[in-house]
Amino acid sequence: MKKIYFDNAATTALDSNVLDVMLPYMTEKFGNPSSIYSYGRESRLAIETARKSVAKILNAHPGEIFFTSGGTESSNTAIAAAINNLGCRHIISSEIEHHATLHSVEHLHSRDNIRLSNVNLLSNGHVDMEHLRELLAGSKERCLVTLMHANNEIGNLLDMHAVGNLCKEFDAIFHSDTVQTVGHYPFDLRNTPVHFINGSAHKFHGPKGVGILYINENVKITPFIHGGSQERNMRAGTENVYGIVGFAKALEMATAHYEEHSAYINDLRMYMAEQLQQHIPGIGFNGDLHGRSLYTVLNVSFPKTEKSEMLLFNLDINGICASGGSACTSGADAGSHVIRAINSDPNRIAVRFSFSKDNTKEEIDTVVAKLKELI
Amino acid sequence: MKKIYFDNAATTALDSNVLDVMLPYMTEKFGNPSSIYSYGRESRLAIETARKSVAKILNAHPGEIFFTSGGTESSNTAIAAAINNLGCRHIISSEIEHHATLHSVEHLHSRDNIRLSNVNLLSNGHVDMEHLRELLAGSKERCLVTLMHANNEIGNLLDMHAVGNLCKEFDAIFHSDTVQTVGHYPFDLRNTPVHFINGSAHKFHGPKGVGILYINENVKITPFIHGGSQERNMRAGTENVYGIVGFAKALEMATAHYEEHSAYINDLRMYMAEQLQQHIPGIGFNGDLHGRSLYTVLNVSFPKTEKSEMLLFNLDINGICASGGSACTSGADAGSHVIRAINSDPNRIAVRFSFSKDNTKEEIDTVVAKLKELI
Repeated sequence: MKKIYFDNAATTALDSNVLDVMLPYMTEKFGNPSSIYSYGRESRLAIETARKSVAKILNAHPGEIFFTSGGTESSNTAIAAAINNLGCRHIISSEIEHHATLHSVEHLHSRDNIRLSNVNLLSNGHVDMEHLRELLAGSKERCLVTLMHANNEIGNLLDMHAVGNLCKEFDAIFHSDTVQTVGHYPFDLRNTPVHFINGSAHKFHGPKGVGILYINENVKITPFIHGGSQERNMRAGTENVYGIVGFAKALEMATAHYEEHSAYINDLRMYMAEQLQQHIPGIGFNGDLHGRSLYTVLNVSFPKTEKSEMLLFNLDINGICASGGSACTSGADAGSHVIRAINSDPNRIAVRFSFSKDNTKEEIDTVVAKLKELI
Repeated sequence: MKKIYFDNAATTALDSNVLDVMLPYMTEKFGNPSSIYSYGRESRLAIETARKSVAKILNAHPGEIFFTSGGTESSNTAIAAAINNLGCRHIISSEIEHHATLHSVEHLHSRDNIRLSNVNLLSNGHVDMEHLRELLAGSKERCLVTLMHANNEIGNLLDMHAVGNLCKEFDAIFHSDTVQTVGHYPFDLRNTPVHFINGSAHKFHGPKGVGILYINENVKITPFIHGGSQERNMRAGTENVYGIVGFAKALEMATAHYEEHSAYINDLRMYMAEQLQQHIPGIGFNGDLHGRSLYTVLNVSFPKTEKSEMLLFNLDINGICASGGSACTSGADAGSHVIRAINSDPNRIAVRFSFSKDNTKEEIDTVVAKLKELI
C-alpha cells in the first residue's frame, strides 16, 4: 500500500538534494571544526558558509545566527536568556504555544518566581492585541512576550510586526517561535522588531537534530549549554557539521522555490477544504482558514461520532498519515491543548492535515473518498 | 598528499557500516517518532531498539539511557540536575575537567551561589583520593562530585569505583564525564557506583550531534531542555533518529571489536612513545603513560624551542593532524588548562597524538621521521 503523508507539520521527508550536500561531511570531511589543521578548517568553513547563507536569506547578520540541536533547544535558550540576562520578570505568552514554550515558561515560573500572563485569544484563535497592550501597559516589571509565528496545530499566523512594535513601545523582549514558518515564508529580520526567533531544519525537508536561534545583535546573552567555545561561546558542544550544512541547503532550496511551492501547497489545502465541505456533512475548520493562516496546515473539525473517534486509527490502517495535534505530545493522547483553548466543544473531533510540495491533488481525492467512507 | 589523522580524541571518522544503518532514516524512514501512525512507529521502534542495545552493552536498564545532542548537553544536564533536583549545594571537581564541566560548574556557582572545591591532583595528574575524602568529610552540604573518567588531553584514567564508593560513603552524587571512554572500554553500570555518565557517538566512529546520558534509576531529575514528551519527558525536541541509530551501531561495533582494537591502538601508542624517546632528545610525556591511562592518547612534551613552538603548524603543512589540547578550545589558542594544572613548566610544548583502529605503524614512522626533521 502506497502511503499518503499528510503530516508535514510534524516532520518532512529529507530532500535528496539536501542529503547529497550532507554526505561528504559524513564520510571524508569528518574533521572537528574547532581543530586548527586543514581537516578542521574545512569543517569550520562549511559551518561559516552555512551561517552566512542562512543569515543572508533571513536578512540578518551572520553574527546573529546560532546553530543548535533544534527548535526546542532554541526556544529554551531564548526564554531562559530573557530571564537570566535581560531582566525580564514577567512573561506574557498564550495557551496555544508549543510545549517547548509552555514548559520552559512554567519551569521559570516555578524556579525563579517569574510572573506569568496569558494573552486572551479571539474566537478564531488570534491573539487579542488590545489585551496584549493592556498586559504590557499594566506590568511593573520588564516583560518577555513569547508568541509563536504560526500555530503548529491550527495554522494561525501572528502579526509579528504589530506584536514587535507593541513590545518596543513597552521595552519588552519579544521571542517568536517560528519553527513552522522558517523555510516556509520569507523573513526580513533586519526590518522586523523581534529579539529571538528559532527554526528547525526537519520542518522544511532538512535533517532532524539541527536548528537555529536568531539573536538580535542588540541583545547580549549567556549560553544555555555551557562548555567549549563553539558558536562564538554561545552554544557549547562539537558542531553537528552535516546537520548544519543540511539546514542551510534546505533553507536555500525552500527559498528558491518559495513562490511556486507556497502557491501549490495552498491550492492543495484549499482544494481539500472545499472537497471536505462538499462531501462530509457537519464539517468545520479550526483556526482562521480564510484569514491569516499558514498555507501548509488544515485543521478539520468533525462531528463526534463512534466513527470519527476512530478516525486517525482508521486513516493509519489505510496508509494515510495525519495527526490529532502536535506530534510532540501525540504519544500521550491527552487531546490537544490548542483545540481546548480555542474551542472546548466536546462534541467535535480535530484532525490536522498538513501538506508539502511532495503531495498531490490525487492524494487529496483519495483521502477525501476514504473519509467519506469512514465517517 | 595523504593525510595522517592522529587526533581521534577530538573526533573520529564515521564508520561506513554506521552510515549504512543511518541512511534509511535519512531517506524513506523519515516519520516523526512521536507520531502514532506507522511511519512514526517505525522511527519510535528504531529509537527504542537503539536504547535497548546501548543499555545492554553498558549493563544498564533501557530506562536509564537518554539520548541527547551530545556529550556536552549530557554533562550540563547531569550537573544542573544535581543542584536543581538532588539537593547538592557543594560541587567537588578538578582543574583538569573538560570545559563542559568547568563552565557548567562556574555557571551554577555564580547563579545559585553553589560552593566549589577542586580536588588536588598528584604530579602524574591523578586525583588525590585522600584529599577527595577530606573534602567530602569536611562538607556540611550534600556534594556533587564530577570527575571525568579519562582525561581528554593527557589520558589519565580515574578509578570510578573508588570515587563512587567514597561518594556513597558520604551520600554524594557522582557524575563522571565518560565521553572519552564510552565506546572504548567495557562498562558494567549495574555494578558501578555512579549516578550519571555521558557519551558522544563521534568519539567512537559514530555521528556528530548525538550523545547519551545515563541516569541511575535511583535518582529522579527534571529535564534540562523543556518541551514535548520525548525521551519519557526527560529531553524535549524531535529526536535525531538517524543519529540515535548511528550511536547504537557505533557502540555495537566498538564493543564487538574491543579486545582487538584496544590492543592494536595501545600498541601503536606505545610504539610511538618508544620511537620518540629513541629519536627526539629531551622528550617527555604528560600524564601517566605507563600507569592508568587511556590507550588512545599520547601527550608528548617537547622542549620549547623556536621550532617546537611552530610544531602543530608545521605538522599540518605536512598533512599530519594533531592538537595542542582539547579541540573545544583550540581555536582560542589560550594554551591548555590541563597542562597548566599538572605541569606549569613554561619551557615545554605539549602535543596530543590520539589514535584509532584506522591508524598504522607506518603512519607513526612517517610522523616520527617528520618530527625529527622539524625539531
